[in-house]
Amino acid sequence: MTTQPRLLRGFRDYLPETMIAKEAMLREVARTFEAHGFAPLQTPALEHEDVLLGKCGDEGDRLLYRFRDLGDRPVAMRYDLTVPLARVVAQYADLEQPFRRYQIGTVWRAEKPSPGRYREFMQCDVDITGTDAMLADAEILAAGAAVLRNLGVARFVIRVNNRKILNAALARVGVVEEPVVKATLRAVDKLAKVGEAGVRAELGREVGLEAGAIDGVFEFLGRNRPPAAPAVLLDRLAPLLAAQPEGVQGLAELRELLGYVAAMGLGEHVEVDLSIARGLDYYTGTIYETFLRDREDSGSIMSGGRYDGLIGVFRKEPVPAVGISLGIDRLFATLLELGLVRTTRATAAVLVAVFDAASACDAVRLAAALRRAGVPTELYPAPDRLKKQFRYADRKGIALVALAGPDERAAGSVKVKRLETGQETIVPEAELAARIPSL
Amino acid sequence: MTTQPRLLRGFRDYLPETMIAKEAMLREVARTFEAHGFAPLQTPALEHEDVLLGKCGDEGDRLLYRFRDLGDRPVAMRYDLTVPLARVVAQYADLEQPFRRYQIGTVWRAEKPSPGRYREFMQCDVDITGTDAMLADAEILAAGAAVLRNLGVARFVIRVNNRKILNAALARVGVVEEPVVKATLRAVDKLAKVGEAGVRAELGREVGLEAGAIDGVFEFLGRNRPPAAPAVLLDRLAPLLAAQPEGVQGLAELRELLGYVAAMGLGEHVEVDLSIARGLDYYTGTIYETFLRDREDSGSIMSGGRYDGLIGVFRKEPVPAVGISLGIDRLFATLLELGLVRTTRATAAVLVAVFDAASACDAVRLAAALRRAGVPTELYPAPDRLKKQFRYADRKGIALVALAGPDERAAGSVKVKRLETGQETIVPEAELAARIPSL
Repeated sequence: MTTQPRLLRGFRDYLPETMIAKEAMLREVARTFEAHGFAPLQTPALEHEDVLLGKCGDEGDRLLYRFRDLGDRPVAMRYDLTVPLARVVAQYADLEQPFRRYQIGTVWRAEKPSPGRYREFMQCDVDITGTDAMLADAEILAAGAAVLRNLGVARFVIRVNNRKILNAALARVGVVEEPVVKATLRAVDKLAKVGEAGVRAELGREVGLEAGAIDGVFEFLGRNRPPAAPAVLLDRLAPLLAAQPEGVQGLAELRELLGYVAAMGLGEHVEVDLSIARGLDYYTGTIYETFLRDREDSGSIMSGGRYDGLIGVFRKEPVPAVGISLGIDRLFATLLELGLVRTTRATAAVLVAVFDAASACDAVRLAAALRRAGVPTELYPAPDRLKKQFRYADRKGIALVALAGPDERAAGSVKVKRLETGQETIVPEAELAARIPSL
Repeated sequence: MTTQPRLLRGFRDYLPETMIAKEAMLREVARTFEAHGFAPLQTPALEHEDVLLGKCGDEGDRLLYRFRDLGDRPVAMRYDLTVPLARVVAQYADLEQPFRRYQIGTVWRAEKPSPGRYREFMQCDVDITGTDAMLADAEILAAGAAVLRNLGVARFVIRVNNRKILNAALARVGVVEEPVVKATLRAVDKLAKVGEAGVRAELGREVGLEAGAIDGVFEFLGRNRPPAAPAVLLDRLAPLLAAQPEGVQGLAELRELLGYVAAMGLGEHVEVDLSIARGLDYYTGTIYETFLRDREDSGSIMSGGRYDGLIGVFRKEPVPAVGISLGIDRLFATLLELGLVRTTRATAAVLVAVFDAASACDAVRLAAALRRAGVPTELYPAPDRLKKQFRYADRKGIALVALAGPDERAAGSVKVKRLETGQETIVPEAELAARIPSL
């Protein structure tokens, strides 16, 4: 009786044809983060349930993979990389602050699967803890923008907003109770997805806002129609929020951040968008979302913000923090669709073919010599028919096949065929590695 | 009320100080595997329970993290990367064979935690499916040995054996029933850990072997005392196994593999060890274990073998396969202990300090310019006291601090301090990036 080989719904495999390209992207992400002074951190996939529960809001809790382990402990698989970071910063008191780390890791959410939405995906996060200075928010933005540019993405926009401004705007229309504020922001967060009518419906029916308050929310969100330059928009908002200290502070923070954005030369990639709200409850200041200009409908590919309260959930003294998270799987899928990723199935530059079983040791020796010389080399792992070996190299996209038959071996040489052109060259074995690049 | 920040028993964090070095190792592993013609594969952490259950033997089943997901489906977290590969090869019929892939990923086993034994760890696997030729077994060994050498490990030994030889040896003493054979091999696998007396006890009490059979097992295992050269040992075994076709074939396989090992120049790193049995049930031919010569007591750091029956559990037509798995966490811990890993806490070459809040934009501009020029740069993310910023760079091990006070800014220059020597240099801002390497 065989077991049916199949995946869980909402999960997927990355076969080599796509994984080679995704792996290259992941390396570039790590390299860029490191070049911005972030160091890697690794935390477990599993945590005590109470470490994760209640940290990402009700929806986060609903989507957690939770179970009891063999010791009957309630455990959960991580929902994001931010809550584990908060746990780490609280747990290791001797961690030098400001602390900046990146983490590339898998997270799990039991969402309803739909095209492009999976229950397991990778996030690439950068965060800075230990300071509430806007310089940190700017560093996060610099690292995020650099990653996209280094991945060959030229046309993107990072939309920024500030929760303090949103809070003040809501206070103006009488929305001040924390649960109602959070529910309102979660509804507003869906604006791009469900449209104004959808958000209005949710604010009325589910959040319970009065019609006047809902109008007030949309009047505020419309403040930037037609879109103005960030500085103009902020000037337009200033009198509106002057009576709310939180709003005044939010505006000052956003203004400072935009100054750093200009200093970094990132002005063309950053916009202020008052409707950016972020669905997660823990944000307290700057919030970011990022869109590909050619595929706005793919949704945000890199989001985050400031969460000055989260680490305080794990220890008495609060520690301010800010970060951003790149959804590498969604970005990768979109770049594939846009033709901005080149897929390949081979990692080797040359396939050493095996002439026959009797001469297999010679093929092994040849492959070993090429590898010692630094040439990425694959040895065909069986004395199959040569036709099959060449077809294998062809299908896999390996550029060169090296083969030594009796004549070549007698002469101490190797025949190399470039599959694309069919060109064959006989090369002395001792010179092979050095001549590979020009064959 | 705060949540206590803590880890699950048997789990751990890698803080930057160790993770920077581990990340560098992981990159080298991936690079080496790719240079040997292996391409990356990624599979989910979670699988349908029946995909994993019963594939790694009773002990494997006992250690599986299993639960029911929100859809009440029985699911399990992967125990290794081999069974998911078998699932993949069976599931995608159009996968070009021979198929060679590497996978670096986390696995979970609910083992009793002990020093150095964790419930979550990473494996780095290379496998070739689709051929039973010993050339494949040699390719796996080549990739494994190259990884260790490229990680700077010079003194290691890969001990090889062949399950067919063990089966034949057991058949000679009357042990032929499959469950008893497997239980016997699992007991023999513990030889290094529990010693001969421990294995004898298990073979008698738990496996139920007669005293004569147990003596026969140890008489066979002792065939290589005193240790002989591999070829001598194989000649010594040949008459013993001549009556068992399986033993004859196992000897021929091992002899062929050793021929390739010699051709690759790996002879000094490979030994035949008849007591290598491997605990997992699915092995059918070659088996490998790898030890650091300076730390044999750390146990095998890279193990594997041929498993020609496993993929057939998922589809009618069997597909032969062979692979090896590097336990990167155990290797990393051992190299740390041996002082063969250099840890560091910084990824940037230079810290741009912030003179004061008023000039923060200049610091941002300077950091952006250095990064554009390719210099790994960290911007201190707050206008803190300079003393604090320098102490931060010092503790983190960042070599250089760049700072522009009013005097330097007026002159269009930057002061750079090398922390180790205290040497300060004033450099024109436009020349800074180019001069960093020599400061």
